[in-house]
Amino acid sequence: MKKNILVAQSGGPTAVINSSLAGVIRGGIENSDSVGEIFGAVNGIEGVENDTLVSLERFKDPFELSLLRQTPSSYLGSCRRKLPDLAEDEETYSRIMSVLKKHNIGYFFYIGGNDSMDTADKLSRYAAELNKDIRIVGIPKTIDNDLAVTDHTPGYGSAAKFVANTLRQLTLDTGVYKMKSVIILEIMGRNAGWLTAAAALANDSELSAADIICLPEVAFDPDRLLAEVERVSKAQKTVMLAVSEGIKDRHGNYIAENSLAAQGRDDKFAHAALGGVGKCVESMISDSLGLKTRTIELSTLQRCWAIGASLRDENEAFEAGRHGVKFAVRDGLTCIMPSFKRLSDDPYRMEIVPIDVNLTANHEKKVPANMISENGFGVTEDFIRYTAPLIEGEPTVSYQNGIVRFAQLK
Amino acid sequence: MKKNILVAQSGGPTAVINSSLAGVIRGGIENSDSVGEIFGAVNGIEGVENDTLVSLERFKDPFELSLLRQTPSSYLGSCRRKLPDLAEDEETYSRIMSVLKKHNIGYFFYIGGNDSMDTADKLSRYAAELNKDIRIVGIPKTIDNDLAVTDHTPGYGSAAKFVANTLRQLTLDTGVYKMKSVIILEIMGRNAGWLTAAAALANDSELSAADIICLPEVAFDPDRLLAEVERVSKAQKTVMLAVSEGIKDRHGNYIAENSLAAQGRDDKFAHAALGGVGKCVESMISDSLGLKTRTIELSTLQRCWAIGASLRDENEAFEAGRHGVKFAVRDGLTCIMPSFKRLSDDPYRMEIVPIDVNLTANHEKKVPANMISENGFGVTEDFIRYTAPLIEGEPTVSYQNGIVRFAQLK
Repeated sequence: MKKNILVAQSGGPTAVINSSLAGVIRGGIENSDSVGEIFGAVNGIEGVENDTLVSLERFKDPFELSLLRQTPSSYLGSCRRKLPDLAEDEETYSRIMSVLKKHNIGYFFYIGGNDSMDTADKLSRYAAELNKDIRIVGIPKTIDNDLAVTDHTPGYGSAAKFVANTLRQLTLDTGVYKMKSVIILEIMGRNAGWLTAAAALANDSELSAADIICLPEVAFDPDRLLAEVERVSKAQKTVMLAVSEGIKDRHGNYIAENSLAAQGRDDKFAHAALGGVGKCVESMISDSLGLKTRTIELSTLQRCWAIGASLRDENEAFEAGRHGVKFAVRDGLTCIMPSFKRLSDDPYRMEIVPIDVNLTANHEKKVPANMISENGFGVTEDFIRYTAPLIEGEPTVSYQNGIVRFAQLK
Repeated sequence: MKKNILVAQSGGPTAVINSSLAGVIRGGIENSDSVGEIFGAVNGIEGVENDTLVSLERFKDPFELSLLRQTPSSYLGSCRRKLPDLAEDEETYSRIMSVLKKHNIGYFFYIGGNDSMDTADKLSRYAAELNKDIRIVGIPKTIDNDLAVTDHTPGYGSAAKFVANTLRQLTLDTGVYKMKSVIILEIMGRNAGWLTAAAALANDSELSAADIICLPEVAFDPDRLLAEVERVSKAQKTVMLAVSEGIKDRHGNYIAENSLAAQGRDDKFAHAALGGVGKCVESMISDSLGLKTRTIELSTLQRCWAIGASLRDENEAFEAGRHGVKFAVRDGLTCIMPSFKRLSDDPYRMEIVPIDVNLTANHEKKVPANMISENGFGVTEDFIRYTAPLIEGEPTVSYQNGIVRFAQLK
């Protein structure tokens, strides 16, 4: 008897998370001898708990599927919910299982980051213990690129490319006036600096678009930064500074929070400055060096900008979803995640292999020392070799009268 | 005897100001029977005063010219200098004329906004009085679209498209969680709301991406805004608010400045909050309505983002430059600006005609009443009919390993 597919999305959006969703749908189509209908749960695991499922059958149409692939952000909505421990709350687990049974779900795919892998892990172990005939697969996703084991994570390449090409364009903009200035670009990534480090991709032999990079992996020292800014600004008109939102001092305290404490603001106003590490660094520089400064927060644009994304990223996100279905349906695997294994950098070659989802759940992969330059304000060739292939190619984007078209949940 | 061309750029950058530069170069090539070499002045009129000229001959190569067309921001650099009145400082004028003479310049093209048209106006009248054999043409440019007489201004279409497609993508991003929230997008345009109004282009039958629009043309009333946000947030999960940096209260005071005054900050810190109208509006909404809010400043991205720009805008910018050369060289005109005259909206047809540059210098064109909705928080069909054709088509962008390629001043 055929079993149905259920798929859901969780955590922060990316430019290509829907490409993984499209890959799961394509996988379902390719395995139609074993797969019946394809459903999506709205707002992640909460949608399963609440039985708010939608049919994804319309995406069996190739044009609709291609539109879904180019649509950034989570088509099915998202949630931030982490499943409770089984020992504490078995009821949640049994409710989920009853919804899955009600809809004859044989395969559940959960697209997300660390927390989502934790959910996939917990659920599949529960199902296995009860001998439930359901296979559960986590599909990796995050702009932070902080999932363990897998060489890299779908979503990272497109965000990295957005950061790099944004810096290139901002550098041209900033350079038009004669005045010396410092631009501070605040980039997402609270604990891992992969996305901030991608600023380095903006540099080439003709353009210095990322002069100084501050990663959360390197203890932030204001005096050393000021000295470095001063050094660079003596040699060139414009200093471009890429700063992770998660930089910390040598005691491990976030810089943005330090600054708030230092200013003695109370909680009521604290929210206005949260995520404001760029402004903190800006104040240090303008107060100490008297240079013209401007902070630009990329904010949520860096996780949802799909125009000029990475074609390789989009394709790999798709393949992660498609391989997830293959691993579950054809190979009968459960409690796994399709993981990327790099075979070579140049030419770039990669294969997708199943790994135990528990190996990635609740781990964080940080930028290793060999990828960070000696002075701590840049990256090494190792980093460039690793990241450069991930931003290659540009997906086709479909427009209508100049407005980009998207697939939308009705 | 052949005369040389000199071209310069001024004011804030746009995504297509270099397309106008490319158009001037193409015009020079097309009129090579009368035109000798093509020079650029670095940093606008200051580059003429200081005799810092560069050769643009390398752009006679078609590939180099195409790269220049896709390069955002001002290739030749910019300045904010306004020429002094002749009566006060004739020396500046005579210095400029001697540099022009030294390089055998017969045609000077100045690409810019209101102030640049003022410069073109003053210089050409001075040259005419002295019977100098030089023809001076202003080429229109500004994302603000606030130049008088011309139907619209090169640079506006691409910035408008960036604003609209940014809103569409942000709306998808914001909609993924279940929580109600308000996104405030702060958009450039200190006195004219054309660019902020373009947020409305993001809306279609499927997606409400710009729910409330606050233009500088409409006196800002906090109570009315709060009531409108509350009304919309009752009907839908996400409220998208597009706010011009230049909104003013009914007394004509800028809202951002009011807020600073209210907080009693001194000048030392005032700079940190300038342009912070988004944060002001955010505070009003979160304090009064208790909704989750997030402000996103598009900052300089809106004037330099070239990926997925408007092909029509790029082409028209090019034609403005090319027609400028034709008007000067073939038709013997001086003290003019190529102006856009719209012949029809649908199908869109436009012709380029020379007008006295004095007609646009120092005027500001604002969004007229017939384009603003009755409640003041949106636009009318007249606005959509006017703006929609300006964002059509997407230029080809040349990438190398995922990094967008640009022409750069060596």
